[in-house]
Amino acid sequence: MKALRFESGSLKLLEVPERRIPGEALVRVVLGGICSTDLHITRGYAAFSGTLGHEFVGVVEESPDSSQIGKRVVGEINAGCGECDLCLSGDSRHCLRRTVLGIHGRDGAFAEFLNLPSHNLLTVPDSVSDRQAVFTEPLAAAFEILTQVNIEASDRVAVIGDGKLGQLIARVLSRVSRNLTLIGKHDQKLQLARGAGIRTAQVAHVQSFGGDPFDIVVEASGSPSGLNLAQRIVRPRGTIVLKSTFHGPSEIDASSIVVNEVTLVGSRCGRFAPALEALENGEIDIEPLIAREYSLSDGVSAITEAARPGMLKVLLAP
Amino acid sequence: MKALRFESGSLKLLEVPERRIPGEALVRVVLGGICSTDLHITRGYAAFSGTLGHEFVGVVEESPDSSQIGKRVVGEINAGCGECDLCLSGDSRHCLRRTVLGIHGRDGAFAEFLNLPSHNLLTVPDSVSDRQAVFTEPLAAAFEILTQVNIEASDRVAVIGDGKLGQLIARVLSRVSRNLTLIGKHDQKLQLARGAGIRTAQVAHVQSFGGDPFDIVVEASGSPSGLNLAQRIVRPRGTIVLKSTFHGPSEIDASSIVVNEVTLVGSRCGRFAPALEALENGEIDIEPLIAREYSLSDGVSAITEAARPGMLKVLLAP
Repeated sequence: MKALRFESGSLKLLEVPERRIPGEALVRVVLGGICSTDLHITRGYAAFSGTLGHEFVGVVEESPDSSQIGKRVVGEINAGCGECDLCLSGDSRHCLRRTVLGIHGRDGAFAEFLNLPSHNLLTVPDSVSDRQAVFTEPLAAAFEILTQVNIEASDRVAVIGDGKLGQLIARVLSRVSRNLTLIGKHDQKLQLARGAGIRTAQVAHVQSFGGDPFDIVVEASGSPSGLNLAQRIVRPRGTIVLKSTFHGPSEIDASSIVVNEVTLVGSRCGRFAPALEALENGEIDIEPLIAREYSLSDGVSAITEAARPGMLKVLLAP
Repeated sequence: MKALRFESGSLKLLEVPERRIPGEALVRVVLGGICSTDLHITRGYAAFSGTLGHEFVGVVEESPDSSQIGKRVVGEINAGCGECDLCLSGDSRHCLRRTVLGIHGRDGAFAEFLNLPSHNLLTVPDSVSDRQAVFTEPLAAAFEILTQVNIEASDRVAVIGDGKLGQLIARVLSRVSRNLTLIGKHDQKLQLARGAGIRTAQVAHVQSFGGDPFDIVVEASGSPSGLNLAQRIVRPRGTIVLKSTFHGPSEIDASSIVVNEVTLVGSRCGRFAPALEALENGEIDIEPLIAREYSLSDGVSAITEAARPGMLKVLLAP
């Protein structure tokens, strides 16, 4: 089968054998989505070597759970060891021995087929299109914030970063906060958010910020300057949610965190069920966030395109 | 009156006039305590210029609240503007226009007299000695953690730093957690903690740590290496409490905070009431933490002594 692989520091479309992993399902990939993490990996993040990709929708070809066969599914990306305390408590997302689809120790979704434990898969409702379903993973990451931080309707919330993840987070959190601002650099992407009824602000404007500070600031820009800005606009005793993964160490002003008693919350993957439900109910319109769809055969070009500054979601169809 | 002042980059014992601040109390200082923050200030932290000192017990000489006159008191160190939303909600500790005794815009306690708003003062119960009462401020800072982080008896808690603050924090948190370890570098200070029934570990041993990670890690070493260690020994979805103020930026591994969904909580001053109550009930024995008592006239030597590596609490009596 064709697979878009990152090996020995370079990205290649290769012909590789299909694999079966005992006890796991085999999924035929219908559509994949390129995430910033994929781009970071091609720059060395996570020291991953293998098939890229963790956002996908597909059809189950084989599974130890025969009721799944033929179903259209999405899949949670962390596969725990199944034996440690974390796995036994249901939190395989943080298992220290986990593999992660296309990120750590497990070939990913930019291929014709992928493997995942059958209990990682969720059936996609018929009313959710493939293009919608492929957003389940990043949308679940946005919903994860609501499981970690209590947000009241009156809370002043800022989301820093107008990229793919920031856009999803702003859409999810603005369902809870009546007072949310998406802060970004790109007029066109801020315009997109305004089209979804989201208030926006230019970073340059916020940097000379003299207004009321924010109760909750979500850093989703992936840039150290975003973390710096977050520290400057959060209120004393406020919360900063760190959503982007950075490559390498970041500087924080620890004294200001202590003196202002700020809480910093690291936030990563979320459970898929609430995200799928929001897509099914039509609560989040993802269509304007799609920039372009490529064939897997053009995967290397697709990654190059996705890495262009300001690019929204690029999809890959095997 | 005599005052130990940090001015133009140097520390001096000076003769200065007593001041009255309209609407505030005048307190005759009986005993002061030297904190690491005082030492940081003499190295440039907080850009403070004035009389040092924020840990004290004293007697009210004058006050707009006549019932306070003649009372032995301790005093919360933040004086808010009294007008902003934070002050009106009772949180003058985070008022953006606050002054802070001996730290920011307000002369401190290493003098014969100090001024504070009368509502900052709390009467010290007769059964609490001066030497105990002078620990109210740092003990309140330790208790503050309990108002910010929910600690269960079964939680594995680590306190990094065997200095004055770490020792108090370990004593306060071990009243809640049955599973607390104080991690430090100094055999003698770890010995002191063991004398109070606290389990201890050498940093060097923990750095090659292969055991279970901790649910909650409190960084009280004041050293960037402490923050680094905290990140390595906290469990996924665990909490790091940042208790020390650092001078200058610190490096964090933001990706590990995100991937492991760690929460970082900045923690500073606390309310005095629970600390005074614990001293009154004899729950915390502070006597072993006192290294030496100096006369204010020897204040410069006292600061030099307090800055020696491994030094515990140095007191200053006018």
